[in-house]
Amino acid sequence: MSEALFKVRFSAEGACVGKLRNEVSLTAHEPFQVERMLATDEGKFQGGDDTAPTPLEFFVTGLVGCLMTQIRVFAKRLKIEVEDVKISCRAEWEALPDPVGPYQGRPAKFEIDVDVTSSAAPDRVAELVSAARRGCFVEQTLGQANVIKHRLSVNGAEQSPA
Amino acid sequence: MSEALFKVRFSAEGACVGKLRNEVSLTAHEPFQVERMLATDEGKFQGGDDTAPTPLEFFVTGLVGCLMTQIRVFAKRLKIEVEDVKISCRAEWEALPDPVGPYQGRPAKFEIDVDVTSSAAPDRVAELVSAARRGCFVEQTLGQANVIKHRLSVNGAEQSPA
Repeated sequence: MSEALFKVRFSAEGACVGKLRNEVSLTAHEPFQVERMLATDEGKFQGGDDTAPTPLEFFVTGLVGCLMTQIRVFAKRLKIEVEDVKISCRAEWEALPDPVGPYQGRPAKFEIDVDVTSSAAPDRVAELVSAARRGCFVEQTLGQANVIKHRLSVNGAEQSPA
Repeated sequence: MSEALFKVRFSAEGACVGKLRNEVSLTAHEPFQVERMLATDEGKFQGGDDTAPTPLEFFVTGLVGCLMTQIRVFAKRLKIEVEDVKISCRAEWEALPDPVGPYQGRPAKFEIDVDVTSSAAPDRVAELVSAARRGCFVEQTLGQANVIKHRLSVNGAEQSPA
């Protein structure tokens, strides 16, 4: 195990507002500090009030935004001239039958096309993009099976998961 | 393999604006249609202009928002009374040394506490939350190792990945 160069730590508190609106209060603890509220909602189709983007729009924006940021940040660090970066991303999920709930969610496809304008040698640009993929916290999260530790409380009393 | 009940399809086009601002134009194709632009940026600390939330804030909001939404949507479908839902989430990543780039990103911890206020039996609420976790597209994406298919072009010409 290598020693971490730095850590990235976030916490978030989600509160229900309206029919399907959620207000998520975020705190970044490391390596920078920020507090911000972002709201999600659903369209009328899903029973929401359409007051904010849907959660999957936030998710896809996180993926695309993180990779684009790392390409530009790493280009500077590696001294590779990059004039422009465009990303085109396609993400697909499927809803499959579930024994209890209305459906299960299942990721089906993630495709990312990166289009770089650069005066550097194309193989240097390819090296940069590979390094940025390894440095992209979101892409690396999607690339491995993560354990999400859950706790549930009902009316304030701890409850074992079903 | 079960037949999908429905598909969820998004595409996104990311464009660089300013120092580290990215404008991500999203299109939802199925099961609803929406077009929206969400911008990401970085704080001055990272070399950005702080005009928009950072990509990881979008990512965490997508995770928290998707699970909260599914708890409320599934509660209705399963006819389980839910008065309120609160979520507290902690997400951590590490930056590790990389042979080429400044660092590699590595997910380190995801913890989600769900606090439900409900007049239903606590074990019914636990069943609901488990079903919502299985129905949460973001949590299911984090729970498996996904292949992200990449294409790279440099100045308009296809380039093999490094």
